[in-house]
Formats: sequence, C-alpha cells, structure tokens
Amino acid sequence: MEPTTFILFGATGDLAKRKIYPALYNLFIDGKLPQAFSLVGLGRREWTDETFQANVEHSLHQFSRRNAKDAGLVNRFLSAFRYSVLDIGHKDDYRKLSELIKQREDELQMPPNRLYYLSVGPEYFETIAANIQDSELGSANGSKRLVIEKPFGYDLQSARNLNEKLSKAFAEDEIYRIDHYLGKPIVQKLESLQQANPVIQAIWTNKYIANVQITANESVGVEERAGYYDHVGALRDMFQNHMLQLLMMTAIHVPHGSTSEQVRFKKKKVMEAVELLQREDVSAHIIRGQYKEGSIQGKPVIGYTSEPGISPTSMNDTFIAAKLMIDNSYWRGVPFYIRTGKRMKQKSTRIVVEFREPLEQNLSTNGERIEPNLLVIEISPNESMTLQLNTKNPGHNVAFKPIHLDLHSKQENSPEAYENLIHDALQGDGTFFAHWDEVELSWQWVQPILDAFAENSVPLHPYAAGTYGPAASDELLAKDGYHWWFDEQPTQNNEIKEGVQYAYSTNN
Amino acid sequence: MEPTTFILFGATGDLAKRKIYPALYNLFIDGKLPQAFSLVGLGRREWTDETFQANVEHSLHQFSRRNAKDAGLVNRFLSAFRYSVLDIGHKDDYRKLSELIKQREDELQMPPNRLYYLSVGPEYFETIAANIQDSELGSANGSKRLVIEKPFGYDLQSARNLNEKLSKAFAEDEIYRIDHYLGKPIVQKLESLQQANPVIQAIWTNKYIANVQITANESVGVEERAGYYDHVGALRDMFQNHMLQLLMMTAIHVPHGSTSEQVRFKKKKVMEAVELLQREDVSAHIIRGQYKEGSIQGKPVIGYTSEPGISPTSMNDTFIAAKLMIDNSYWRGVPFYIRTGKRMKQKSTRIVVEFREPLEQNLSTNGERIEPNLLVIEISPNESMTLQLNTKNPGHNVAFKPIHLDLHSKQENSPEAYENLIHDALQGDGTFFAHWDEVELSWQWVQPILDAFAENSVPLHPYAAGTYGPAASDELLAKDGYHWWFDEQPTQNNEIKEGVQYAYSTNN
Repeated sequence: MEPTTFILFGATGDLAKRKIYPALYNLFIDGKLPQAFSLVGLGRREWTDETFQANVEHSLHQFSRRNAKDAGLVNRFLSAFRYSVLDIGHKDDYRKLSELIKQREDELQMPPNRLYYLSVGPEYFETIAANIQDSELGSANGSKRLVIEKPFGYDLQSARNLNEKLSKAFAEDEIYRIDHYLGKPIVQKLESLQQANPVIQAIWTNKYIANVQITANESVGVEERAGYYDHVGALRDMFQNHMLQLLMMTAIHVPHGSTSEQVRFKKKKVMEAVELLQREDVSAHIIRGQYKEGSIQGKPVIGYTSEPGISPTSMNDTFIAAKLMIDNSYWRGVPFYIRTGKRMKQKSTRIVVEFREPLEQNLSTNGERIEPNLLVIEISPNESMTLQLNTKNPGHNVAFKPIHLDLHSKQENSPEAYENLIHDALQGDGTFFAHWDEVELSWQWVQPILDAFAENSVPLHPYAAGTYGPAASDELLAKDGYHWWFDEQPTQNNEIKEGVQYAYSTNN
Repeated sequence: MEPTTFILFGATGDLAKRKIYPALYNLFIDGKLPQAFSLVGLGRREWTDETFQANVEHSLHQFSRRNAKDAGLVNRFLSAFRYSVLDIGHKDDYRKLSELIKQREDELQMPPNRLYYLSVGPEYFETIAANIQDSELGSANGSKRLVIEKPFGYDLQSARNLNEKLSKAFAEDEIYRIDHYLGKPIVQKLESLQQANPVIQAIWTNKYIANVQITANESVGVEERAGYYDHVGALRDMFQNHMLQLLMMTAIHVPHGSTSEQVRFKKKKVMEAVELLQREDVSAHIIRGQYKEGSIQGKPVIGYTSEPGISPTSMNDTFIAAKLMIDNSYWRGVPFYIRTGKRMKQKSTRIVVEFREPLEQNLSTNGERIEPNLLVIEISPNESMTLQLNTKNPGHNVAFKPIHLDLHSKQENSPEAYENLIHDALQGDGTFFAHWDEVELSWQWVQPILDAFAENSVPLHPYAAGTYGPAASDELLAKDGYHWWFDEQPTQNNEIKEGVQYAYSTNN
C-alpha cells in the first residue's frame, strides 16, 4: 500500500467521530494502514493538534469495536494526526493546508499521495473540489483521491451538475463515492458466494428464481434529521442509493476473478436494464406511504406530520415500495420488490431470493403445502445468510419441513463497513464504491417518480407507525401471487389476509 | 393398513433375530403394525410357541434400538406370535401351516391377507414359492405378498430362472425384493430432498455435475462367510445389488408427488441407459482387486487367500472399482465411479456428487485453488448429508474456504432400514424395493464382467489390507482428471501422489 496523506474535511463532525476514527484505528491495529501515514484533520473550530488528538482518542473509547486501552498503541496511532483550521470557502486556507501536508510529507519522507475525505454536507463538495484544484494541491504529482459521502445530488440534474463540477478536479477513477451498504461484510459476501460456487451460479437466473425482495425497514422516525428528511424523503434518502445498490449487487453475475472494473461494468449493465417507468406507470409500480401515529413495541409514537421540524401539511414519503423489472436474459420476468420505510414494526434489512416451484409441485399429493426454497441475506440487525430447503425425515405421513442452511460463518467482532471502505480507498480499489454511471442511472430511474410525487399524481398512503407499511405494499406483491417474506403479522388495514397469514406462519 | 398375517420362513435364524423382530417391535411401539396382526414363525427346530416367544423377546433385549423393559408392552407384542415346524420341502407342512394361519385369522377375525417373508437361503426360494402355490395357501382370496432377501440369482441366467419360478406363484407387484440399502433413511432422503427442492433439481444434471462417486468400503474381511463369499466376490455380493441401486437412486429425477410406479419406472430407465460394456472394454472400466496382508488401525491382518475357508489359489474379487456412463440427456458425459471393497482402511459408505467448475474459475487470480462444490451423502458409519460451498469472510487477502451445510437434521434413534422396509411391505408400497426390471438390468450390466473374470482376462490387482484398494482404482479416476474424495492418505504403491495429497488436505 502506497504511503498516503489522509486529508479529512469535517474532522470535528459526528461521522468522523463515530465511524472514521474508529475505522482508521482498527485498520491500524490490523496493520492495514500504509507504513507511512499522515492524517490532517480540517474544521472551522480553532483546535490545536493536541485538542484534535484528544478528541480522536475520546472517540475511540466511545465508538471503536476494539478497545483503545493500550496507551502506547493509541499514541503511536495518534502521532500521525495533525489539525488545521479551514474555512471551506477560504482559498488561503488551502495554501496553508498544502504547506502543512508538504511539511509532514518531508518529515515522514512520503511521496505526495493524497486522499481527500469529504465528511461534510454535499453543498460543500463543489467548493472544496474546486479549491483543491485551484490551489497548489491540485498540481501535486502523486496519487490524488476524493472520497465523498452521500447524498450525491438531489435529483438527476443536480447530480449531473455536481459530477460535472467534481470531474474538473478529479477523474472518475479518483472519486470514491461511499455507499456504506456496499461496505457491509455480508453484502460483499453475496458477491464472493456467487463467484466461487458453480452451484449458486447455476440457480441465479429467471429459470429458477421467482422474485427478489429487498427490504430496509427502520423502526425509528425522523430523529434529529427532521428538516433534512422532510426535504428528501425515503426515495432520495434510501431508495436511490442503498436500495438500488443492493439490487445491482444481487442481480450481477460475476465470474470468479473479476476485476473491479468488470464488477462495476456489470452493475452498470444491470441498472441500464432496469425497465424505466413512464410517468403514467408510476402509480402501478410505486407505493408511497407516510406514517401516522401508532405504537412500536407497546410504546405510542406520534405521526410524521406531528414530529418537531416537520411541516403539518407535509406530503413527504417515509415509505416506498417498488416493483422493478430487469430486462436482460438473466432476469426477464422476475420482479424485484424493494421497500424501505421509517417507523416500521421492526428494524430489519434483508434480501430474500424466492425460488420458483414447478407449478405441479405447488401442492403435494396429500394437499400438503411445500415452502418455496429461499435464500435469505439478513443485513441487519444481525448478519446472516441462509438457504432454506425442504427435507423430510423418512418415516410415514411426515410432511416436508424447511431446513435452514447457514451460509455465513459468524465472525466475532468483524470489520465495520467503514473499515472495509477506507481500506479499499487507500488501496485504490473502487469495487465497492458507487461509480458515476451507477449513480446517474439510479437517478434516471428515480426521476419520473420524483416528478410524479411533485405533481402529486401518486397516492400518499397513510400507515400506522409500528406496522409493515400500507396495505398497498402487500397488494403490490399479491397482484403477482407473492407476499413479503418474514413479515410478522398482518399490517393494519390489511385486506389480503391469506398471504400475510402464510407469511406469518413461516416465520415460526 | 390392512390386517395381515406375517409368515416368517427362517424364524430361528440370525437375520430374524437381529433385524426382523426388533424392526417389528419398534413398528409395534410406533403404532405402525396393522391393528389386527398375526405372525407365524417357521423353522425346522421343534420349538413351541413359548420357546419361540422367549427367543423373540431375547432378541429384542439384544438388538432393539429401543428397550423392551415394559413387560406389558412386550407381552402384548408377543401375543401375536405363533410357531410351526416346517420342512421347506415337505408339502404336508404347508397344509399344517395353512390351518394354523386360518385358525389364527378366525380367532382374530382377520381376512386372509398374507405376507410371506423368506429369511432363508436363496436356494429355498423356488421350493417355498412353489409349495405355497400348490398348497391351499395359494388359493386364499386375500392379498398375498412375498418378501425376499438377497441374493437374487448368481448371474443373469440364474436370476431369470429364479424369477420365472417365483412368478408362477406371485405377480411382480406381489414380490418385495429387499435391498436394505434402499431402506436406509438417508438414502430415502436423497429422493425427498430432490423432490421438494427446485434448487436441488436445478443442479442435478450434467451441466453442473462433474462426476459422482459411490463408495462402500468395509474394513472387515470375509468373517464367517468365507465359503459363501469366495464363491460370489464383491461384484455379486455388493456391486450388482446395493451399489447399482445407489446409482439408480442418485441418478433418477423424480418430480414431487411421484408414485411408487413412477419412481421405479425412472430407476429402470436409468439402468437401461447405463452404457453396456463389451467384454473387451471390461479392463478399461473395471478394477478387480484382492486384499493381501496388511494392517488395520495398527493391527496386522492376514491376506484373503490365507483366511480360513478360502482357497489359497482363489482369484476371487474382494474389491471392485468401476466407471459407468449413463447415456441420457441428464447424465451424458458424467462418469459415475463406484467402488466397494473389504479390508479397506476405514468403514465408510458414501455418495459424493462433485460439481463442475467453469474452466476459467479453476484457479483464482492469485493462484489460489478453489475447492469444487460437493454434495456428500454419508450413509455409514454416520448418516449425514452435506453441501460443501465456498465462502470468504470479507477482509483482504483472505482465501475462499469451504463451508459445510448440513442437510440432514440428525434424528436420535431413527428407524432402521428394516423397519422402513417391513412397514412398506405391510402397506403394499414397493417404492423402496428392487423391481425385477432393475434386478435383470443390473445382472445384464454385470454379466460381461463376470464373464471376463471367469476367463481371467482382467488383471487381479493385489492391495494391502488397510489401504483404499489398488492404485489402479485411483488411476481410473486420474485418467479423467479426478480423484476419490475423502480418502485419508495415499494408498500403498500409489503413483498419483498429487491427487491423493489434495484429497488428503481436503479432509482436514
């Protein structure tokens, strides 16, 4: 790994404290930072190096998955950390920054490889990139990388504008767009499982798969992000990025030994093949919901429009369910159902792949119903990957019973998403970052929905907090003869009792 | 289940004691015997009903998988048991037998449904069947079934002769030929796993399967059966029946809800599709071996020709390895390797299905070797069914590792093969018995090998006791680029070190 200077914008912020410092510390312990490593933290606060280091150390104690009790180790880690005051719009501060970086590079005898990590609001991305480019930072002759957090744009046009600005300072292969879902070990494993197992590859097509369900349910409401959230909604906050990334990761076919470029090319091809919705088709494919008051685990909670910071007349979406079709030879005819919502009954992020049954096998001779085969990738709250098959212990009049095969050997204390991603960025490996093509195609897919929402041509379904969303979400699947797997009980006002009860029974 | 009289020829014999009485007792405990049930034991010894019952009870204490301590229960079970002296060739004894049966049927108000179980040497089958037919037993108007043990014939012609004789007294659907391998829960499960899982069905073809290996290794030598065994050898004793039955059970494709007739029709179709060997091809496809002295688990053992009761110049086969090709659309191009032998290193009966790897995936980019996917059905000494896939716990420079998915939820104290089979026969379910068509086709396949052995045109490879058979058995697979899975260490005189070491490494 090349010696690298890690330049962190937003060094006094929350994400840095919760995720970035702990991730760097754990990489340090694992010997996964470059031998020569320098970090410069940037913020508006007038911190000294010592204040900065003390704050970083404090964050390790609070948030690191491994303890930071070894003072010698922690000090060695912190010795790489320097702080510089920077006003993002102030060109002179970039000159100062450049000098500090160079001074540290001289001290540590490092080449000018720099990684700029923008842990700041998206409204600052352009300015920072431009100021890097315009200052002498822009002409350093080492490697140059830009790591940015979501959101990348507010709609298709703004994303394109942002990308155009960034690309004046950084080439596409220098830009690492973090989607932390791609850093999760279990999501990365999904790809490796397919790469190394002909048995999995064999069944990964519309010939054997009936549908795919991607769920990201949160039980929390808007929390402290009310003002921001009311502006973006579930579609922008979760769907356009995380959910579509999970779809791409599920739908790609990657032979073993694929390079980063090949993986991302395949993802792009998948997203290109997702059938675009005409604006008039939006209501048939997209369910928009907003939570009303209800209760979660016995505790009453208020409705969305009663939350502090939310407009009482807000039409914002806190729930989205969607049906997407991928028009390629692997997936033609297989619906991908995606849903994400706040104030759902249970926090749960998972991908369920439901396998087809030949029609005549739906019911056995004695009327016994056999469960379909399922591959269940549970992303949170617990990581697991399970293949559900049916077996029968011989003997007579014994029904087929599902068995669950655990494909994911649990690792105690496994690396967090941010560790994987920062390590990849330091290595220059872009596999698990969102390529501009993917981002643009995602926005392109989402745009007609944004437009339909804006002109209010899609119903906003209320749902009680603590349910699994509006009944319309169940109906979206029921129309095709399916149901959401592992929902625990009928959603409120649910009219398709049978499907849901069936889902209920399978969860026990 | 219809009321049935169970007429047991060979009631004083070893098989009855070890297997049949314990099986009936366990069926009784499980409520799986007919409500009205009568058993008549037959033998030459001059036993009374009481002696017979006492002997049966003793066998339960010795061999039942569940204890027989509840005297009330045991007595209720034994109350169905009567004994009659019978000389197999003595027609008058069949008249006596008929009277006893009818008397018991009257007492128990049962219809004349009779199941004849021939737990006697095959040399008596014809006589018994003829005498049943010729006596008034032959004209009873209830159901009539014949259960017989192996061997069914000594070669193709003798099997045909035997069948012709039997079929004068019993129709094919009245004959239940026991192959106790078909009664084993795990073998029956193989079929149910396929029936109920589209995911398994999908990969059950030559498109995804590279080869199938069926092994039945014994560590014992000839034991007390020397005289018999030296006359038949591994080919007749194990291969023609058990091994080819396992091949048929592995190679059939049975949709869910298949009837007994459909299952057996498919088995027949598989066996018909096994490519016949011309006599001149035998040496290329069949390895014949005989064990020499050696050691098993550190204990020296003598060679086959030194065993008491074996001719010192015997050319009998104690080991057979074979390569079979099935010429149908499912299996064309997939070798089925079968081997069975005595005095092998370890007792082990298993089926290994090795899945193909796309060629370019054989080696990963960093030269790392990835294990093929395997489905391993361990029949003995332990029952298990495992799918071996590869996974990688994300993180860097981490190799793919095999994981083992347990498809067989172990049942404590599960039914023995004989319980399943006797229960099936009482119910009239022939699914897991060998149909005459299967038996005939098996002998037909084996006949050119018998002929080649008889004219000694196939080498007899010596192998040291306590190995995995002759090196030629490994070479049989090595020629195709494969190796036997899970052999623990190189066989003696083994020249294909690499393959075997690889097999060794995968066993840890």
